[in-house]
Amino acid sequence: MIKAGIIGATGYVGVELVRLLLAHPNVSKLTLSSVSFEGQNIADVYPNLRGLLRGKTDGVLGDAEAAVEASDVVFTALPHGIAEEWAAKCLSKGKKLIDLSADFRFDDDEATFKAWYGKDWVHPDIHAKSVYGLPEMNRQKIAAASVIGNPGCYVTAATLALMPALEAGLISADMLVVDAKSGITGTGRNPTATNNFSESGESFMPYGVGKHRHQPEIARNLGKAAGKEVNVVFTPHLLPMSRGIIATCYARLEKPLTAEEVHGLYEKRYGGEPFVRVLPLGTVATTKNVRGSNFCDISVHVVSGGTVLEIVSALDNMVKGAAGQAVQNMNIMFSAEETAGIDLIPAAF
Amino acid sequence: MIKAGIIGATGYVGVELVRLLLAHPNVSKLTLSSVSFEGQNIADVYPNLRGLLRGKTDGVLGDAEAAVEASDVVFTALPHGIAEEWAAKCLSKGKKLIDLSADFRFDDDEATFKAWYGKDWVHPDIHAKSVYGLPEMNRQKIAAASVIGNPGCYVTAATLALMPALEAGLISADMLVVDAKSGITGTGRNPTATNNFSESGESFMPYGVGKHRHQPEIARNLGKAAGKEVNVVFTPHLLPMSRGIIATCYARLEKPLTAEEVHGLYEKRYGGEPFVRVLPLGTVATTKNVRGSNFCDISVHVVSGGTVLEIVSALDNMVKGAAGQAVQNMNIMFSAEETAGIDLIPAAF
Amino acid sequence: MIKAGIIGATGYVGVELVRLLLAHPNVSKLTLSSVSFEGQNIADVYPNLRGLLRGKTDGVLGDAEAAVEASDVVFTALPHGIAEEWAAKCLSKGKKLIDLSADFRFDDDEATFKAWYGKDWVHPDIHAKSVYGLPEMNRQKIAAASVIGNPGCYVTAATLALMPALEAGLISADMLVVDAKSGITGTGRNPTATNNFSESGESFMPYGVGKHRHQPEIARNLGKAAGKEVNVVFTPHLLPMSRGIIATCYARLEKPLTAEEVHGLYEKRYGGEPFVRVLPLGTVATTKNVRGSNFCDISVHVVSGGTVLEIVSALDNMVKGAAGQAVQNMNIMFSAEETAGIDLIPAAF
Amino acid sequence: MIKAGIIGATGYVGVELVRLLLAHPNVSKLTLSSVSFEGQNIADVYPNLRGLLRGKTDGVLGDAEAAVEASDVVFTALPHGIAEEWAAKCLSKGKKLIDLSADFRFDDDEATFKAWYGKDWVHPDIHAKSVYGLPEMNRQKIAAASVIGNPGCYVTAATLALMPALEAGLISADMLVVDAKSGITGTGRNPTATNNFSESGESFMPYGVGKHRHQPEIARNLGKAAGKEVNVVFTPHLLPMSRGIIATCYARLEKPLTAEEVHGLYEKRYGGEPFVRVLPLGTVATTKNVRGSNFCDISVHVVSGGTVLEIVSALDNMVKGAAGQAVQNMNIMFSAEETAGIDLIPAAF
Repeated sequence: MIKAGIIGATGYVGVELVRLLLAHPNVSKLTLSSVSFEGQNIADVYPNLRGLLRGKTDGVLGDAEAAVEASDVVFTALPHGIAEEWAAKCLSKGKKLIDLSADFRFDDDEATFKAWYGKDWVHPDIHAKSVYGLPEMNRQKIAAASVIGNPGCYVTAATLALMPALEAGLISADMLVVDAKSGITGTGRNPTATNNFSESGESFMPYGVGKHRHQPEIARNLGKAAGKEVNVVFTPHLLPMSRGIIATCYARLEKPLTAEEVHGLYEKRYGGEPFVRVLPLGTVATTKNVRGSNFCDISVHVVSGGTVLEIVSALDNMVKGAAGQAVQNMNIMFSAEETAGIDLIPAAF
Repeated sequence: MIKAGIIGATGYVGVELVRLLLAHPNVSKLTLSSVSFEGQNIADVYPNLRGLLRGKTDGVLGDAEAAVEASDVVFTALPHGIAEEWAAKCLSKGKKLIDLSADFRFDDDEATFKAWYGKDWVHPDIHAKSVYGLPEMNRQKIAAASVIGNPGCYVTAATLALMPALEAGLISADMLVVDAKSGITGTGRNPTATNNFSESGESFMPYGVGKHRHQPEIARNLGKAAGKEVNVVFTPHLLPMSRGIIATCYARLEKPLTAEEVHGLYEKRYGGEPFVRVLPLGTVATTKNVRGSNFCDISVHVVSGGTVLEIVSALDNMVKGAAGQAVQNMNIMFSAEETAGIDLIPAAF
Repeated sequence: MIKAGIIGATGYVGVELVRLLLAHPNVSKLTLSSVSFEGQNIADVYPNLRGLLRGKTDGVLGDAEAAVEASDVVFTALPHGIAEEWAAKCLSKGKKLIDLSADFRFDDDEATFKAWYGKDWVHPDIHAKSVYGLPEMNRQKIAAASVIGNPGCYVTAATLALMPALEAGLISADMLVVDAKSGITGTGRNPTATNNFSESGESFMPYGVGKHRHQPEIARNLGKAAGKEVNVVFTPHLLPMSRGIIATCYARLEKPLTAEEVHGLYEKRYGGEPFVRVLPLGTVATTKNVRGSNFCDISVHVVSGGTVLEIVSALDNMVKGAAGQAVQNMNIMFSAEETAGIDLIPAAF
Repeated sequence: MIKAGIIGATGYVGVELVRLLLAHPNVSKLTLSSVSFEGQNIADVYPNLRGLLRGKTDGVLGDAEAAVEASDVVFTALPHGIAEEWAAKCLSKGKKLIDLSADFRFDDDEATFKAWYGKDWVHPDIHAKSVYGLPEMNRQKIAAASVIGNPGCYVTAATLALMPALEAGLISADMLVVDAKSGITGTGRNPTATNNFSESGESFMPYGVGKHRHQPEIARNLGKAAGKEVNVVFTPHLLPMSRGIIATCYARLEKPLTAEEVHGLYEKRYGGEPFVRVLPLGTVATTKNVRGSNFCDISVHVVSGGTVLEIVSALDNMVKGAAGQAVQNMNIMFSAEETAGIDLIPAAF
């Protein structure tokens, strides 16, 4: 059985981790920490959890150090730029860390991290041995890792959509268009004009055009898949709904291919993956079908007279895009069943 | 292990039953039937279920007779007026039936059923031994029953809200106001002008004022709790959201009581109930906190200078208001853990 | 032509006033003031207004004193407790003031104001001559007034719903239940956990049970209509939508009446009212049908075997519940066509 | 003054025309026709219109022939393939016709129409003199026309977004990506599984990938702007909201340009346009800012190190995307002020 700690348990990603780990069959103990609500009970902050702590935690939001002490694995769900210190502490005590910020998403590439996040690294050695936690790309490395950088939500959608085609050299890396749309939970718990229902409901808009921080992370992943540098045009948009991401991705086919051919390749690439569903030809990925679950659904389309590949991926930004993927990583790291605690069946509505 | 069949598996209640029973630890086999989609696969009709049939079913929507044959318990999720025949068949073969329509909600009171649903009974003998499936009211009878009438969604919310106060004689039965609001899944799968997003989104309205069919069922339950006839004013409204019911209930207190006193009584009445959460004083029941789960949250308020009791209950109309409660009944009937398969933790958002 | 000023032009009520007054045929000049965005242009704060200032204003959010100087009438859309000083200034300069906070909603009843808003009055003389700005109740006094207290949104809905029945003595004042539901714009521009889309979307809840500040204002209005003290139970709820209020109101009929009889009385009472629509029997008030307009729709229902009167009123909380009603008051005060600038046709969806 | 008739007045586009024409200062008479609701009153079908017919119509939904007889201009808001006959009738009687279906959107190109809509033309002569009703492209021809084909909603958004860049030869016509998202009113009044709130709320998906009928219309417009054939990849998506379209458009710049340069060109191209707002650099087009109005907002972005032009356009699919644009065309055809009746100020929320 695994003892888990969550630092930053009251942010949206944090509390989604709580939901998943409370129901996880291999987790026996859960220790929660929060700066904003220190000393309070999580079931008072999030009344959906009332009566559901299941003997794994008393719900008290305690000190972060205590969460490290009490746990085999620590999840950090904090603003960018804080996780390094916790990683150092965990390593010094023989514990594992799964970070849900961007801090460990760039392996040893400090320059890119610094360019986009404006911060130097204190522990480059830890970065050198950290692993980027996308199981479909790095499963074996994850199994052996002590520090995981959990991928961004948009990044997971875009990478799973285009990785197979780039690995197989099907598409031009010249101009990969990733037009992505996310539910509002992506803006987090902090209330702003942007996530005020009065302004975000019954409305839709792009944001961060040409300068969203998931851009370099997508480019990095797709570049690895392609084996060369790629040009990614990434635009995020905000949907008037809580959960769910769709990435609609466009690329020129290097040579004419039928939808059946590309679909076959995707089915083969993801055949063994427990959380990627390559949909039958003729259907389209839809956020509703993955809501609340750890699945990424992918639909394959060949358009413009066979010249353009269009891939649509759908996932729940809070689950496969954050907390669920972190639990998947934990399962791999602790040799648990990979689907344990995240084999949730999405509802039809 | 239980073998379960669902007749009407592709309606909204039916497919919610599928979601719950696929994940139910005590259910080994699931046989599905649908008239509208006969011969198709449930995972094509509801793509959220793709790849999740877990060896319990091949997903093919077959014949209803076959679903009866293959099962220990049959769930009928059909329009009103059809379940009697299936009950007769189940009984003749020694199988149990849980009906989610109104057909078995009135025990032996054919007159009321006929007045509101316009249909005679063919098998009054079956009605005589059927049991109304509200566990918080009838747990012991349910355990021994072969035919269950699963309660209406609004009815469950209203009954759980007012039953303790009426049982204890705290409130006047003279004018019980139940102002209830439901998500749009309550209108079902059949598309209409009412549930068209363009007309129901960003809008709110009452409907069926003074003539909704849940009225006599509420009156019947509350009358039993009070031990006398009650006057219920029930108004349903349609919320611009998918799931969730709030019943805001008002009644005159027979004598002045503090909120603490009433709250104590509610906590005592529901102390042993696995799916009723009496909230701390000062908080209010909210649909978000029960979404997707089998909980009914109840908040207690004493207002108007101590003269009026106001109770707010919140539940998910598709779970505690329909499919989840049916599974709860199945668990009781088959001596399974009452929470098996329905111990879902609601998400924070 | 009227010169109008708005102090607090960037709050939600303020900017709704801007929308209405920019299109108002009798308003020639508009002077805007905002503390939060002083010096900025309203079209940068609210880009919906870009290019639409129509020569009435340069859009610059200036000093409040200047707005008073430049205007014949000043609208104050500020937090409670600030309008008194502006009223004094306006009066000293021979200008009129329409206040959209609660400050002038209680005529000369300082005690009630103080009990609910916790503040003494500095200028009781101004309160003594201020007029409560509900045209359907006080049209003649409004025409002669210099200082108007514009009614609360819930209050307008509740008062228009029950005033005719109370004036005619049809219903018992013993227990008037007002179960009201509002769109999220009612929480205003300030972002909070409550109006964060992630928490308020796909959810519904009551709030302020037994202690909402619109309670004494409703009680005051209904008491005036009844000619005696009334007992109002008022519960507001938060709807997952932007605009719109429904008040579902319940009262015992003093003697048996048919729906036709009550409906006739309502039609007579509101026959000359330009902004109250008494709906045909058999239909129900719905927020969609008044969205963006100054109408209050009212539907009449007699239920529980003729013993209970149920009235449903629907209005747009930002228009008839705030800015539109303020403009209606302005029109009356300046002898303009009462519908000028607010004769907007609600869209069907 | 203009006498207008609407054939198909109870569809969503039809009733939006009713809303606009009732308030139109130059329209004196409105004659309505509907097959689905013949003989009923429009205010019973759409209660938002109750009491608002303003002496222009009695609201009775009559015969289509009568609507032609009584009118100077007829709007046909019907399924595709029916308008030709009405055009012939109108022309024979010296009346003008504005068709909101696809029937007159292809000028004299019967082959493309037939390929996508599967229908031959009966009156090729009428098509030869019909005019495509996009004022920003064809204002002078519209002024002289008798038969107008009103553009598709997605098409208007995509064309206004890319036309200036193509006219100026800034971008490669090799692969123009138009990733478009529409509110659910686009699916119309007919209720379906797709627009059922329970399935479309809190969800998002593409549809008609590679085969939506607006594709050839977009390609035709952009080809005209470019002066050569273009390759358009067009994907529509369905948003969980009622109104609004965003088209996010991507194209390779033929040579490096700054955002300022492109922005300047767009400002110049649309400088005289009353309904196109080129937004300041650094802001993004958002559906909320145009909701209910006839504006198309456009934001200009240069991304990927100056290699890719990204244009975002936002409009209300029911107004500039349908009924409002039809009224704009009417205004031009009748030498009215072009903004008459459609100078609506969008609300901030």
